[in-house]
Amino acid sequence: MRKEFWQEDFEVLGKNDLKKLQVERLNATIEHAARSPYYKTLFQQKNIHKGDIKDIAQIRDLPFTTKQDLRENFPYGFLTLPKKEIIRLHSSSGTTGNPTVIFHNRHDLNSWANLMARSLFCAGIRDTDVFQNICGYGLFTGGLGFQYGIETLGALSIPAGAGNSLRQIKLMQDYGTTAAHAIPSYLGRLYEVFQSAGLDPKKDTKLKTLVIGAEPHTDEQRKRIEEMFGVRAFNSFGLSEMNGPGVAFECEYQNGLHIWEDAYVVEIVNPDTLEPVPDGEYGELVMTTLDRQSMPLIRYRTRDITRIIPGKCECGRTHRRIDRITGRSDDMFIIKGCNVFPMQIEGVLMKIPEVGSDYLITLVTLNGTDEMVVEVEVKKEWFKGDIRRLDNLTKMITAQIRDEVLAKPIVKLVEPGYIPKSEGKAVRVVDNRVNGVTKENISCS
Amino acid sequence: MRKEFWQEDFEVLGKNDLKKLQVERLNATIEHAARSPYYKTLFQQKNIHKGDIKDIAQIRDLPFTTKQDLRENFPYGFLTLPKKEIIRLHSSSGTTGNPTVIFHNRHDLNSWANLMARSLFCAGIRDTDVFQNICGYGLFTGGLGFQYGIETLGALSIPAGAGNSLRQIKLMQDYGTTAAHAIPSYLGRLYEVFQSAGLDPKKDTKLKTLVIGAEPHTDEQRKRIEEMFGVRAFNSFGLSEMNGPGVAFECEYQNGLHIWEDAYVVEIVNPDTLEPVPDGEYGELVMTTLDRQSMPLIRYRTRDITRIIPGKCECGRTHRRIDRITGRSDDMFIIKGCNVFPMQIEGVLMKIPEVGSDYLITLVTLNGTDEMVVEVEVKKEWFKGDIRRLDNLTKMITAQIRDEVLAKPIVKLVEPGYIPKSEGKAVRVVDNRVNGVTKENISCS
Repeated sequence: MRKEFWQEDFEVLGKNDLKKLQVERLNATIEHAARSPYYKTLFQQKNIHKGDIKDIAQIRDLPFTTKQDLRENFPYGFLTLPKKEIIRLHSSSGTTGNPTVIFHNRHDLNSWANLMARSLFCAGIRDTDVFQNICGYGLFTGGLGFQYGIETLGALSIPAGAGNSLRQIKLMQDYGTTAAHAIPSYLGRLYEVFQSAGLDPKKDTKLKTLVIGAEPHTDEQRKRIEEMFGVRAFNSFGLSEMNGPGVAFECEYQNGLHIWEDAYVVEIVNPDTLEPVPDGEYGELVMTTLDRQSMPLIRYRTRDITRIIPGKCECGRTHRRIDRITGRSDDMFIIKGCNVFPMQIEGVLMKIPEVGSDYLITLVTLNGTDEMVVEVEVKKEWFKGDIRRLDNLTKMITAQIRDEVLAKPIVKLVEPGYIPKSEGKAVRVVDNRVNGVTKENISCS
Repeated sequence: MRKEFWQEDFEVLGKNDLKKLQVERLNATIEHAARSPYYKTLFQQKNIHKGDIKDIAQIRDLPFTTKQDLRENFPYGFLTLPKKEIIRLHSSSGTTGNPTVIFHNRHDLNSWANLMARSLFCAGIRDTDVFQNICGYGLFTGGLGFQYGIETLGALSIPAGAGNSLRQIKLMQDYGTTAAHAIPSYLGRLYEVFQSAGLDPKKDTKLKTLVIGAEPHTDEQRKRIEEMFGVRAFNSFGLSEMNGPGVAFECEYQNGLHIWEDAYVVEIVNPDTLEPVPDGEYGELVMTTLDRQSMPLIRYRTRDITRIIPGKCECGRTHRRIDRITGRSDDMFIIKGCNVFPMQIEGVLMKIPEVGSDYLITLVTLNGTDEMVVEVEVKKEWFKGDIRRLDNLTKMITAQIRDEVLAKPIVKLVEPGYIPKSEGKAVRVVDNRVNGVTKENISCS
């Protein structure tokens, strides 16, 4: 088979040429970054200048950037350009505390759309495909990220949005959908709806490719999805700080995700010592943008735990592969495609007068779908109230948590003392999901 | 004040130059359309050829196109290009019956984005604005339509999506939103949330422009919105068959909506005789696309009732103005920004065995928000059932109607015989909304 690439010039660059390109782009990135208030001060303190980087290994001399830095310098501390030149922002959810925000100018959006198109092409999608994007739009990067990528690739995009399974099935049948993007747990639900409608996706659709991401899932779950739908399912990786989807993608060999090294410098470090770990060993993924003008990020600590898969890929692409994410070096978890920090839920609960001092978040898999159960202790004087009052309180808490983290929880009110107390640091999250051990970072945060 | 235009070359064209451009483009459109199966056959039957049009008035020799034609030739009967060249579709909602679908190639999406940018510029939006798009994304044309337009204009877009008022307010405050797009009834709800949070949008935001559309509203409602938010509110008109938003827009003089005559031939006809009516008189709006390659539509009957406002506009734009839509020549109504045909709701109800033979849809304004109340007669043997059974049935019907028309109804189960019988044709929809008399067509269908 003749090998095909979206951008042969970039995707099969020899190791030395790729490093040379990275050095050029990293120096340009330092120059851009120095225009932001945050990096300007930091670079002055640390005596960092454009042109300093002669070898890409020297990136280790640069300081790390963390989510905390982003939050403390919200909203414009990392912005390098006049606001007039910015044409889009993506912001994390939540109404309490400082969100994280990423700004894009036209160059940044074009660059992102191109990486997304390259990723889809890498997974075998072509301009002859009909691509249904089953994903929330708006501030979530998954919706617009895939939309622009599909259009740049030239496939026929169906901006289906999330939910409404019968309608998703009708769209697939009406327009002969051949490829789709969805979170893995939704695909389990969708399959059930196919079955209740007396349909078999293998026979009754033209689906041949699914792109899955934005949620923890294992390779076994991928194989189940492939069998249920009679497709090949490709793993997608991204995080909003690095644009969103289109950061790393599986190719036809499905043996790890090519991470686009012309657009990002990729490091794996020991999350405690922050020293690099050898290829093949697990550590925290650290990324530097190489082609973002409005808001370059240098050595951004993603908190995602993965490893570089050693060796060459048969597809011919020279960009290295990361393994699926096996965990986090902080307490964030992902449910229904939404990034959730337990403190967000605590923030909501502690503002409600009826709520007592304890709560417990349990992640479970119910009928194939991952759910977040929040048990909330209610003050004694309230718990004896009538059912209707408790019902209303449950609904109110459910709505407020959903508004904060965008994922709808199952809220259960419990008596004071019901939640077991731990001896040391309180346990706030228990992950009992079928695939809960492997946490995959999300395409849309 | 120096007059400013997004595209001076097109917006202030003299009458004769505009007509000349229309003739050129209409002949090109006929040439494109002749490549679609539907128009190919029709043009052969009617002996219509490219180059036939020497004067734009000759458009009256061409046949009308109706929604029925779109449905009967679903999905590809109007498509002029190989599917490979199409990069997006927008389809109407619903899981029963044939939807209507519009296909776009890259030229079409660029043309639409440009018209949308021109519209926003016309309402005073500039690249220095921060524009929050409070609107559903996905298949609704309002989300992506405004998104691409804002980015083309160069303003900073916040793809906020619909709902979650507290978050909308936080976004406005975090990023200094100066302009936003929303449906008018949502703005009433949003104002209440501002008030409950102890905030005043006039003092606590930087809002200066609101773009409103996609729902019936009067000029009085517009003035209330302007007072509540301390802004100028501009009327937006569009329909998915003509792309979506960006078809006609108010300028700073707010005295009617400039309808872009370089992109559309505009006619107002008597809906019964289909003969043209003079400027100033009300009739049905009929539109022909002049710059769409994938799916040109010729003399499309929009069913919207409006009139041409006679005279010149002080803004200097020569494109004529339409008045706000005063009704429909069919039974479609718009609620919560969604186009609803009563037959869609009947289709859902008649498939449910417990449902009797009668139902009534009443549109009302509750606490400033327009709601759709659906009273459903339940068969006698069911109505005596226990409350829980009826509760479950109510929930099921609510969910099924919402899935069909995308707007959530208030469902009330009633006894057989409760709904008054009319002597003649059954009355299925009663419009008791505050602004229910004036029905405005929507930006997103």
